Amino acid sequence: MNSYGRHFRITTFGESHGPAIGVIVDGCPAGIDFDEQLIRAELDRRKPGQSHITTQRREDENFRVLSGVFEGRTTGTPIAIVIENQDQRSKDYSHIRDSFRPSHADYTYETKYGVRDYRGGGRSSARETAARVAAGAVARMLLNRHGISVHAFVSRVGDIQAPHFTTLDLGKTEDNIVRCPHPETAEKMIALIDQTRLDRDTIGGVVTGVIRNLPAGLGEPVFDKFHAELGKAMLGINAVKGFEYGSGFDGTRLKGSAHNDEFYNDGDRIRTRTNHSGGVQGGITNGEEVYFNVAFKPVATIMQDQASIDRHGNEVTVEGKGRHDPCVVPRAVPIVEAMAALVAADFLLGARLSKA
Amino acid sequence: MNSYGRHFRITTFGESHGPAIGVIVDGCPAGIDFDEQLIRAELDRRKPGQSHITTQRREDENFRVLSGVFEGRTTGTPIAIVIENQDQRSKDYSHIRDSFRPSHADYTYETKYGVRDYRGGGRSSARETAARVAAGAVARMLLNRHGISVHAFVSRVGDIQAPHFTTLDLGKTEDNIVRCPHPETAEKMIALIDQTRLDRDTIGGVVTGVIRNLPAGLGEPVFDKFHAELGKAMLGINAVKGFEYGSGFDGTRLKGSAHNDEFYNDGDRIRTRTNHSGGVQGGITNGEEVYFNVAFKPVATIMQDQASIDRHGNEVTVEGKGRHDPCVVPRAVPIVEAMAALVAADFLLGARLSKA
Amino acid sequence: MNSYGRHFRITTFGESHGPAIGVIVDGCPAGIDFDEQLIRAELDRRKPGQSHITTQRREDENFRVLSGVFEGRTTGTPIAIVIENQDQRSKDYSHIRDSFRPSHADYTYETKYGVRDYRGGGRSSARETAARVAAGAVARMLLNRHGISVHAFVSRVGDIQAPHFTTLDLGKTEDNIVRCPHPETAEKMIALIDQTRLDRDTIGGVVTGVIRNLPAGLGEPVFDKFHAELGKAMLGINAVKGFEYGSGFDGTRLKGSAHNDEFYNDGDRIRTRTNHSGGVQGGITNGEEVYFNVAFKPVATIMQDQASIDRHGNEVTVEGKGRHDPCVVPRAVPIVEAMAALVAADFLLGARLSKA
Amino acid sequence: MNSYGRHFRITTFGESHGPAIGVIVDGCPAGIDFDEQLIRAELDRRKPGQSHITTQRREDENFRVLSGVFEGRTTGTPIAIVIENQDQRSKDYSHIRDSFRPSHADYTYETKYGVRDYRGGGRSSARETAARVAAGAVARMLLNRHGISVHAFVSRVGDIQAPHFTTLDLGKTEDNIVRCPHPETAEKMIALIDQTRLDRDTIGGVVTGVIRNLPAGLGEPVFDKFHAELGKAMLGINAVKGFEYGSGFDGTRLKGSAHNDEFYNDGDRIRTRTNHSGGVQGGITNGEEVYFNVAFKPVATIMQDQASIDRHGNEVTVEGKGRHDPCVVPRAVPIVEAMAALVAADFLLGARLSKA
Repeated sequence: MNSYGRHFRITTFGESHGPAIGVIVDGCPAGIDFDEQLIRAELDRRKPGQSHITTQRREDENFRVLSGVFEGRTTGTPIAIVIENQDQRSKDYSHIRDSFRPSHADYTYETKYGVRDYRGGGRSSARETAARVAAGAVARMLLNRHGISVHAFVSRVGDIQAPHFTTLDLGKTEDNIVRCPHPETAEKMIALIDQTRLDRDTIGGVVTGVIRNLPAGLGEPVFDKFHAELGKAMLGINAVKGFEYGSGFDGTRLKGSAHNDEFYNDGDRIRTRTNHSGGVQGGITNGEEVYFNVAFKPVATIMQDQASIDRHGNEVTVEGKGRHDPCVVPRAVPIVEAMAALVAADFLLGARLSKA
Repeated sequence: MNSYGRHFRITTFGESHGPAIGVIVDGCPAGIDFDEQLIRAELDRRKPGQSHITTQRREDENFRVLSGVFEGRTTGTPIAIVIENQDQRSKDYSHIRDSFRPSHADYTYETKYGVRDYRGGGRSSARETAARVAAGAVARMLLNRHGISVHAFVSRVGDIQAPHFTTLDLGKTEDNIVRCPHPETAEKMIALIDQTRLDRDTIGGVVTGVIRNLPAGLGEPVFDKFHAELGKAMLGINAVKGFEYGSGFDGTRLKGSAHNDEFYNDGDRIRTRTNHSGGVQGGITNGEEVYFNVAFKPVATIMQDQASIDRHGNEVTVEGKGRHDPCVVPRAVPIVEAMAALVAADFLLGARLSKA
Repeated sequence: MNSYGRHFRITTFGESHGPAIGVIVDGCPAGIDFDEQLIRAELDRRKPGQSHITTQRREDENFRVLSGVFEGRTTGTPIAIVIENQDQRSKDYSHIRDSFRPSHADYTYETKYGVRDYRGGGRSSARETAARVAAGAVARMLLNRHGISVHAFVSRVGDIQAPHFTTLDLGKTEDNIVRCPHPETAEKMIALIDQTRLDRDTIGGVVTGVIRNLPAGLGEPVFDKFHAELGKAMLGINAVKGFEYGSGFDGTRLKGSAHNDEFYNDGDRIRTRTNHSGGVQGGITNGEEVYFNVAFKPVATIMQDQASIDRHGNEVTVEGKGRHDPCVVPRAVPIVEAMAALVAADFLLGARLSKA
Repeated sequence: MNSYGRHFRITTFGESHGPAIGVIVDGCPAGIDFDEQLIRAELDRRKPGQSHITTQRREDENFRVLSGVFEGRTTGTPIAIVIENQDQRSKDYSHIRDSFRPSHADYTYETKYGVRDYRGGGRSSARETAARVAAGAVARMLLNRHGISVHAFVSRVGDIQAPHFTTLDLGKTEDNIVRCPHPETAEKMIALIDQTRLDRDTIGGVVTGVIRNLPAGLGEPVFDKFHAELGKAMLGINAVKGFEYGSGFDGTRLKGSAHNDEFYNDGDRIRTRTNHSGGVQGGITNGEEVYFNVAFKPVATIMQDQASIDRHGNEVTVEGKGRHDPCVVPRAVPIVEAMAALVAADFLLGARLSKA
């Protein structure tokens, strides 16, 4: 289904070339100051055409909040946000109407539903993530009341790797177009993306997320562990191939004696000296920073001809054309933040239910 | 909550040292031949004390199927399976009654609930996974009717890495105690685990899973993508720190032109020449093998004294004692398979709903 | 939450005087011919101002289908329908801004949320049901493929009772403004409503629903019985005070020997000679007609002054003004049908999951 | 599915003649004093063989609490309760093995699942309700902390009607075997049931429920109204044919001016002078008593031969034999209370989420 979240629940709709996309945010508590500018700001961060390393296609995000807000505050009723699709003219999609683009969702949608809106990828288009970003902004309004902040940045493009996040000032993420807060690394990443575009190719990368000031006690112990939901949320973003939190895959190479996080009493509260746990132990937050990596594959749409099959099983050539991102990772940053904010908001509400 | 799955849904209960643990499997279709021996076999694969590299603690798994089966077939009503805990004697747990073991769930449970069953880890014990394994065996009964098979094996321990799964005979996984189907690698892994145990330490590793013969068309396109649910299911297993499928984190280093999977018509059906997609495109299976890696951290319980804090905030030393696995990865193999089987069964049912 | 249905699931949003109301229909199978005219027709049946016995307030229902339909067919993705609110001018609501209207939701919303949109009842307005009617029309598109039809009519207003539905031609329901297919009774009902309006008062009544051609086997055996979900769906409509199906409350006066429905073989299929069961046995449909009664209280808004309390606890007089229905029951008919259609569609899909 | 409740959620399992039935209570907050005697007491109230007007079949309820309780308090983890079936000997069920008993669930189960456990009704047996009663006792432990009490009594058997509940002392419900707190009416009810049993027949009736001291603000405004969930919960009990709350079906005969409940300030809080609303306005509790009626049909099993059909479509005679209740209503009282307690507990938790 097209819903995410148990208590703070969003339901999205919309195709790339339909009249509009949008989201209903259900379960947002009443009495929160509603900040429409935050929605606009986040949508602007996600939209195409922001710089020369992203697609030159422009989408202006005209949105309306249709419900759930009264006199500047949330009312506890569903908040519906509709974002108009600016460019519904059906351009020439004959090249993909009957053909299955490699590593896209064309074939699988056709198999599952027997019918698909082929224009611009339809429901599988990255356009759908705008609805998530709008909903994530609402989640942030709740998190802000609790001092919880959500950050993400580009930590790797291809083989260009930024230093560990604990050495970086995440406030500098927006200082450059690749959204890597380490200027020297950012330059190299931009150069790699530029070259990739000239090669009419695409490249993948990694986004690192960090959630700060989460209280201890969020998460459910068995299936709905904090990091399990976070992982699902990230893996639900288009083009994501992997998720790890805390010490992640590299941590598996360590011995337990090196990996364990020692507790100490810092006077105010119980803390850990290291944070291999990534702020989560037994599926429940321990009050330390939650951090995680999200792997994005290279975008499937390349500016090259590719061999493929059409819906009748015939061999065809899929042309590379249109305007697309050579690297999706910089624009994925606000999406990763939005999904992380939604997960945090959901568990923040859920934590109200654990004690008598 | 303690449920997993939307259509084929399990709900588990039980603590390590309570009278019993168990599971209700709800939504299993009627008319499936019920194979109790499969449950026994899977539970036996998971149980402790199977070899010298796992914990020497023994748990015999006496289970009862209490409902949902009649005259050898499922009836469509809930299938309850209860597994008795053999060893409920409360040994001396005074060393952890008030203390928080490093990188365990003691502190987070205490924070979340204000109370915890400290005996053997309570609900956060790996014992809980026996219920999942039993449920996974039921899921397999459904999958078997469709020729779908689920495999997992140990692909890495510490830095000892097995060859790529496509070069291995997964039928040989059970041939050695470390559950790696590559004999030379298995030997090295066993040696590493042996040494780790002698060092009174623990070591992490990776389990690789493979699902074969899944039909195309399973998965939901947005939040509940096949691989997103699979990831959540894996990340819900104790000690898991990461999940990747298909080309995973390494795939992010590739160019799109190298990463895209070209479609071709093999006569019977549409296939892809490579499988960087890991059998999933746009969140929906495409009929190729689904494969994935699951990262397990080194077990937190080590046979060494560790500094920590008690519930009153005082500094304490947590002693290393008891019988525990130096490496949890071999015993995680049937758990990974069980969770993968549950995900596959759930989506297999869900696929009945997509077309008119 | 603001969702209804498990497989065929709707989520509604919107307040009476916000910019718009609407609904997302999620889980509608792909490949259904989409009939926008059916949505218009059903919305027209619900809208105010249709006759002299309903409110003279006019709401023209301008709606847009924003997603989920492509080239005239459903695609399996969410279908969003947005209905603009025509009259958002905030009239003078000072009389209810701080006061609690008797037997309205003002006080309870204020208590639950601490804030409320007092304009026209906000979310508790009957305006919200327009979204359900639109969604119900989509459900009918699915039901129509299976020959399932959903009917409702006014069977009682005050003490004016129509004959038993089995003696009536339900095709005549729309022949008069009170939506009672028995002309003589309809006349009396209209006269009673006319007199009630002249008295500046309101009156309650009963809507009877009938679902025809449901296959046997729909419903879940324990909590989610067909009639339990149907009852919840009806009790979720504004002003509903009771629900009964089959023999209902009167059936409790019978002896079992008189109440039991005898099975017989009519050649084609197994049927029952009587239908006290109302088409449902053990929570599952048996292929006979499902019929039920829904009790609607007299509308709380009356054209009379009433004593009440304001939010500060002070005594106030709530004036009776505005344009309101003296009897809501005729306009409830399409809403009852819509909710019944949604229940039927949901169970129709669910029935695909019961067998291996 | 076999679960009920959103936050305080139960999942039941078990057939009449399997090894055991039971329930998992998930979402019960941690830190509640656990009273096993309350479970026993409630199970004893439900069990057969309590008096000469109920079935003489005896079921002793041996139950075990398998999880979720530690040192006398709930831990926040799932509470599993298993109740052994005493009498699993399969008596002679050949008379119903292939035949469909009139107005039972035999035919519909067979249609839905293609297979059924015919022994004693299998999953459709009233035995299943024992699991609900046990779970309801846990819900009461939570409600008791808040001073909320749940009452039910027999208000009608056939045509024998007790006075309105507001004139009765509900503390006297258990003073007689028919569970009607009005002694004179109770005598008449008992006489009617006695005569019905002598006639080898059965009779229906009504149970009235009352929930006291519920805080204002419980319930969700649209689909999940307090009374809608309450209605679903009641309609999910075997043999229930109708539900009404507050003024119910009779209230539909009133004018709005007579039906509206006037608010007043009683010094402590806002109250209503009358309670036609039944403690719920706009789907949300207002702090007044919630009261409701539940209609039970006459039990389908009668001690008479009845004509029917077998699974092959042949005409058969179903013999009336065994030990069954001539009137199920007295034993339904603790079941109605249990389901009401579960609904109240669920909304009590849900109310924690409505405000920021």
